[in-house]
Amino acid sequence: MSGPTVLAEHRGPGVMIVTLNRPHRKNALTDGMLEELEALCRQLAQDDSVRALVLTGADGSFCAGFDLDGMEGMTSLPPLRLQRRVERQAAAVSALYELPQAVIAAVDGPCVGAGLSLALAADIRVAASRARCRAAFVRVGLSGGDLGASWLLPRIVGLGPALDLLLSGRTVDADEAFSLKLVNRVVPCDALVAEALALAADIAANSPIAVAVTKSVVHANAGASSLAEALKRESASQVITAKSADVEEAMAAFREGRPPRFTER
Amino acid sequence: MSGPTVLAEHRGPGVMIVTLNRPHRKNALTDGMLEELEALCRQLAQDDSVRALVLTGADGSFCAGFDLDGMEGMTSLPPLRLQRRVERQAAAVSALYELPQAVIAAVDGPCVGAGLSLALAADIRVAASRARCRAAFVRVGLSGGDLGASWLLPRIVGLGPALDLLLSGRTVDADEAFSLKLVNRVVPCDALVAEALALAADIAANSPIAVAVTKSVVHANAGASSLAEALKRESASQVITAKSADVEEAMAAFREGRPPRFTER
Amino acid sequence: MSGPTVLAEHRGPGVMIVTLNRPHRKNALTDGMLEELEALCRQLAQDDSVRALVLTGADGSFCAGFDLDGMEGMTSLPPLRLQRRVERQAAAVSALYELPQAVIAAVDGPCVGAGLSLALAADIRVAASRARCRAAFVRVGLSGGDLGASWLLPRIVGLGPALDLLLSGRTVDADEAFSLKLVNRVVPCDALVAEALALAADIAANSPIAVAVTKSVVHANAGASSLAEALKRESASQVITAKSADVEEAMAAFREGRPPRFTER
Repeated sequence: MSGPTVLAEHRGPGVMIVTLNRPHRKNALTDGMLEELEALCRQLAQDDSVRALVLTGADGSFCAGFDLDGMEGMTSLPPLRLQRRVERQAAAVSALYELPQAVIAAVDGPCVGAGLSLALAADIRVAASRARCRAAFVRVGLSGGDLGASWLLPRIVGLGPALDLLLSGRTVDADEAFSLKLVNRVVPCDALVAEALALAADIAANSPIAVAVTKSVVHANAGASSLAEALKRESASQVITAKSADVEEAMAAFREGRPPRFTER
Repeated sequence: MSGPTVLAEHRGPGVMIVTLNRPHRKNALTDGMLEELEALCRQLAQDDSVRALVLTGADGSFCAGFDLDGMEGMTSLPPLRLQRRVERQAAAVSALYELPQAVIAAVDGPCVGAGLSLALAADIRVAASRARCRAAFVRVGLSGGDLGASWLLPRIVGLGPALDLLLSGRTVDADEAFSLKLVNRVVPCDALVAEALALAADIAANSPIAVAVTKSVVHANAGASSLAEALKRESASQVITAKSADVEEAMAAFREGRPPRFTER
Repeated sequence: MSGPTVLAEHRGPGVMIVTLNRPHRKNALTDGMLEELEALCRQLAQDDSVRALVLTGADGSFCAGFDLDGMEGMTSLPPLRLQRRVERQAAAVSALYELPQAVIAAVDGPCVGAGLSLALAADIRVAASRARCRAAFVRVGLSGGDLGASWLLPRIVGLGPALDLLLSGRTVDADEAFSLKLVNRVVPCDALVAEALALAADIAANSPIAVAVTKSVVHANAGASSLAEALKRESASQVITAKSADVEEAMAAFREGRPPRFTER
């Protein structure tokens, strides 16, 4: 399923694993690869058989960043065409971020530059103990405001660590990434994919409509200027879930002392 | 003071303790209970004898969430009436959040779902070592964007842990809650209320007008789009405090080498 | 260079150290001192020889806050003139925050009130092990929304710790400041300035235009209401860096297996 540089595979009920697959380049990104990722996300967004997905990289690397070979052709473009191309790349990040399903990044080895941005656009990050994160942009003359990092990183780790990482371009190992809450948990390397899949399976057992509405309202309320505004948006979206079959199923299961079987999307 | 399901009691100068009081249901919330809480908050907002308050639950539980018995009647409402009811519940959270006094949640035992949302709307959270926090919404088919959690949780713990907790619905113990900064401190179970009251007493010794203006400007600047906008709002609000009797008292106390006695509201 | 209460000195290629210099008052701020700081920042913003700067205090203190001696004249001003004076002070914070170069606060001893606000306006904070941070405002009758603290502190440490510090006015030692991510690292007292300068030198070796654009887009996207809005702003700003000589130099250096020599501003 999907193209040669982004692979997608079902792994148990409701769970899919998506693999960045250019292992000879440590899964460094090309424009074509981001287009494949975007197309895959747009397809998954409509796929009710998928409730949670794991995003990882082939062969012990998450992603080494944007492939510098592709950069040379890009920087020689006229400014407006260059901007269009950056926007085209960003569309892959938007598609990933806006998936109605939970997305868990399983990060091993290098997670650098634009690769770090992809991991930030996931909902949850699980790292192998040898993972290494680096916002390398300023070391190659580029803005750390790339593929969403300028917005996502401060909201994930706070403004102080975000500016430290973005302005220095220094490498953060898995333990520091955990202490900064850049990653949600650290596991042994050989347990990485299994742990990420287990977390995905846990979430896949929750109500899919509730997961989708929760993500949507958290994203929308990231821009709410006050709690009052946020509460208004929440009340509208809670109607969607409260009127769904899933909430009825949850209450029936509760009455009957059994686990719920959620179905609605 | 107040109704049977929300109790309020003075505890030393300027300090009040508010107790969620349905212990046979682990203080699970009903619509009536939220209305009592809202009415109490509106009354306390006008009460100059109260400078700080502790919000806790009876009998070793903070709050087990919204009472599922009340849910059944609610989900069968027509959509617009359902939304009105959610908004009515949210009004209690607004009233709590907008109190001019400092609010310290003292969290023991379960702090689940809508109960967690109430704790998030407090300014400061102190947890007993056996406290257990859980954003259980997606496990019962509901949006985790409930009673402000979609806005408050990311601003308290960061976007990564917020999505982890909201999408998985997993249980977080007191130590993890502390490491996530979901709670500000963890204390032994039998010291919980005493510690929360001591913190409330410390804050009650500060200038009440300064505390109220600080809360108000932090809340308002949560929605400021830039430091420049935030500085403008700060300068207007600082005039309110700088022209108050409290700042004169602070300077007199400083000159005279004595503790200040603040009075203004 | 610069006035007697704010000193500026070159320290190695591209690095400047700026010292708050009223040691007999633990570098407590006066209006004149903030005006000196503002003028210095406006000058440094145009100075291509400076790529990173360290902000510190003389004689083992960072800054004890606003000098209470100056406060008395201030609080007796009519309200509108008082507000103008607060805005004038805030202009120094804006000028510091908006510097295109990286700013590292090197914090030793007391870092209190308005002094804490200055540290928060830096990009990165390094603390000596004996540093003590305190948002003392509410203890002297003033709003903790002062010189940007109401906006910066929640974005750096999260809403929970921010309200704790601002409403209690309690003292935080270096270790707690680190665990709250209020400071990015803690070092022994006698290594403080050397560590801060080393970090400044690392950043000064990165592309100056990339650092400036990254800061600018992180600041601008602090107010973006969604990832989609943030991505648009990023794509425009990435054109600035991608069309610069620095990115060409980075790619040439990469091809030639040598460190880049960045020059552009």
